[in-house]
Amino acid sequence: MADNLYDKLGASASKAGLHKALKSAGAAPHSSLFAVVNEDIAGDEQYLSFIHCDGAGTKSIVAYLLSKATGDLSHYAGLAQDALVMNLDDIYCLGAPSSLLVANTIARNARIIDDEVIAQLVGRYRLLVENLNKHGIPISLSGGETADMGDVVRSLVVDAVVAGRIAKKGLIDTKHIAPGDVILGLASSGQSTYEDTFNSGIGSNGLTLARHALLKRAYADAEADIVDRAGITDASYSGPFDVTDTPEELNGMSVGEALLSPTRTFAPLLQNIYESFPGKVHAAIHVTGGGLTKVLRFGPGGLKFVKDNLFEPPAIFRLVQQHGGVSWREMYEVFNMGQRIELYISPEAAESIMAEASKMKIDAKLIGRVEKSNNNSNSVLVRSSHGEFEYSEN
Amino acid sequence: MADNLYDKLGASASKAGLHKALKSAGAAPHSSLFAVVNEDIAGDEQYLSFIHCDGAGTKSIVAYLLSKATGDLSHYAGLAQDALVMNLDDIYCLGAPSSLLVANTIARNARIIDDEVIAQLVGRYRLLVENLNKHGIPISLSGGETADMGDVVRSLVVDAVVAGRIAKKGLIDTKHIAPGDVILGLASSGQSTYEDTFNSGIGSNGLTLARHALLKRAYADAEADIVDRAGITDASYSGPFDVTDTPEELNGMSVGEALLSPTRTFAPLLQNIYESFPGKVHAAIHVTGGGLTKVLRFGPGGLKFVKDNLFEPPAIFRLVQQHGGVSWREMYEVFNMGQRIELYISPEAAESIMAEASKMKIDAKLIGRVEKSNNNSNSVLVRSSHGEFEYSEN
Repeated sequence: MADNLYDKLGASASKAGLHKALKSAGAAPHSSLFAVVNEDIAGDEQYLSFIHCDGAGTKSIVAYLLSKATGDLSHYAGLAQDALVMNLDDIYCLGAPSSLLVANTIARNARIIDDEVIAQLVGRYRLLVENLNKHGIPISLSGGETADMGDVVRSLVVDAVVAGRIAKKGLIDTKHIAPGDVILGLASSGQSTYEDTFNSGIGSNGLTLARHALLKRAYADAEADIVDRAGITDASYSGPFDVTDTPEELNGMSVGEALLSPTRTFAPLLQNIYESFPGKVHAAIHVTGGGLTKVLRFGPGGLKFVKDNLFEPPAIFRLVQQHGGVSWREMYEVFNMGQRIELYISPEAAESIMAEASKMKIDAKLIGRVEKSNNNSNSVLVRSSHGEFEYSEN
Repeated sequence: MADNLYDKLGASASKAGLHKALKSAGAAPHSSLFAVVNEDIAGDEQYLSFIHCDGAGTKSIVAYLLSKATGDLSHYAGLAQDALVMNLDDIYCLGAPSSLLVANTIARNARIIDDEVIAQLVGRYRLLVENLNKHGIPISLSGGETADMGDVVRSLVVDAVVAGRIAKKGLIDTKHIAPGDVILGLASSGQSTYEDTFNSGIGSNGLTLARHALLKRAYADAEADIVDRAGITDASYSGPFDVTDTPEELNGMSVGEALLSPTRTFAPLLQNIYESFPGKVHAAIHVTGGGLTKVLRFGPGGLKFVKDNLFEPPAIFRLVQQHGGVSWREMYEVFNMGQRIELYISPEAAESIMAEASKMKIDAKLIGRVEKSNNNSNSVLVRSSHGEFEYSEN
């Protein structure tokens, strides 16, 4: 199958064309900060402000299918966590914010998404914020907006927005990454001290690819609401599974549950790390779109990121690779493959930071190191039991 | 045709079921403030903070149709104004904020929405913010997020988010509306001193109803991407027009252009009014979903809002009523019908506030008054040349 399976399915890991178009429209160029910041809205020169939007993406389709198959609308609730954490963990790659407000936006086809689904999502946002507060995250819930727009939205869009402030002191700027730094990976999968259930590690990116690779063609044929019919290719819903199937590899989880596993937040751990080891983290990269190549557009430039000791990919990724016939090269470019946060640190800080992760039962290990590149561009080298792959900037 | 044409088309003006579900999920009850506020994120007791989300809704479909018919992708750009103003004017119903940050989120079907459309939208956001700055609006542009999710989004979702701060002093709380107040309407249609083109007055709500009432059935049949096929009824795309048709009533605008006319912002005028007449505005209501009944859930309770001198509905609304066979009762409940901001003020403040509007070439007039109700509930009475309609809370 082609390397660009994801493009073929209507999504893109690199978004190259989009970035070009945005540049022509005068959008701000990428900075070395992980998320966009502005001058402080309270006018304090010691602070910066931010407003950040992201969402659960196409994961909502899996919630629709699993809820329909089981009659259990609570499968939608985790999408609130996906939307919130996609924002929260981006922001925590800047450092520890001093305050956060979160609002939610939901767009739905009211013909197929019940009011009760909205209640599930809003209820989960409340629980999440309460739980985050218990772990010292200074986040407050604001309002939201639900739009009924079935002519535009086939099923459901679940987005969240966070706004807040962060002190300039303690701000993490990836320009501080340097040759000699090591890369510490924090596991996307497992069950931390602040989580109730085991997490498959899938997160909230690559879900279009994962869903089409694993789920049966019958879904494309029977479910007009969840399919872009004119965009169907031989790669669409080309897998062997029903959402309720429980392949041995998933240890009791169904395929639907593994795909829906809500994105783990690392905010409580990162907050502890930043407090305990000020200045030790040169960069924190939230491994989302772009997978293990995400770091390519950060740092001071001219670096080679050698990743030769990655986590073994959790079962859900191995299933996607196998049944989707996805190249390993593309897998590392789309998914987190087991590590969802990369911390770029001096070698001497590694042991104590890993001990901090261990206290919260989050697996952490040194997955690689930073070298000088042969030119001014960045590159990523993945050396794994599944092959060796090099990726370059642009 | 049934009174509930809008419900039949998959949208709802009252959102009654949704509000019930949200209440059961523990969502905050409605307050007497027009938008949700939180404690200040900078910790200053004299301030409040807010984060607010809204978007262009199904208006994006009209942009798709008109761009396709004319080959001109610039028809998409105005959606940025719709998304931004739907937020901005809600916030300016709280008073004048001290700072604002705006971010944008776009979700698209990349198969049919080009990268160039995203560039058009982002470019327009930049122009809008520059223009607002020239008029003293303290707004800054932050980042954005574009998600490719054709399996969820048939065409395009254009949303904006604003976050900011507002001083408690000067905050407008609708609980100050009192019997004896007059209602000053600010026109949704026309061309102000800070606008380049004539505005049809449509704003960004009721677009589902307007589109289906005016546009031809051929669009439902030919355009699989813009239709919820399983949701089609006899009311869907039941109008007589192509998007490029120019019925005499529209004075040279095409139907598509009139439907797409970007939502006017009143922020520059409201800012002037608040500065010049502190404390004089008891409530500012942004007439969006719910139309002229929007005010029902605001105020101290027990009020009757008599609106007996409304603006004559602009041509676009008369066309929707006529060709959609929409009852006038429903028209006033869905659309702004000519006034998009209602200011509730003491009679003696009216003349000077109208003079302020006149300076910016925004039509303003006294459209009604506030009386005591017979019970504890609010009611709205619309008395127009098209009939007399009473609406009650709940």
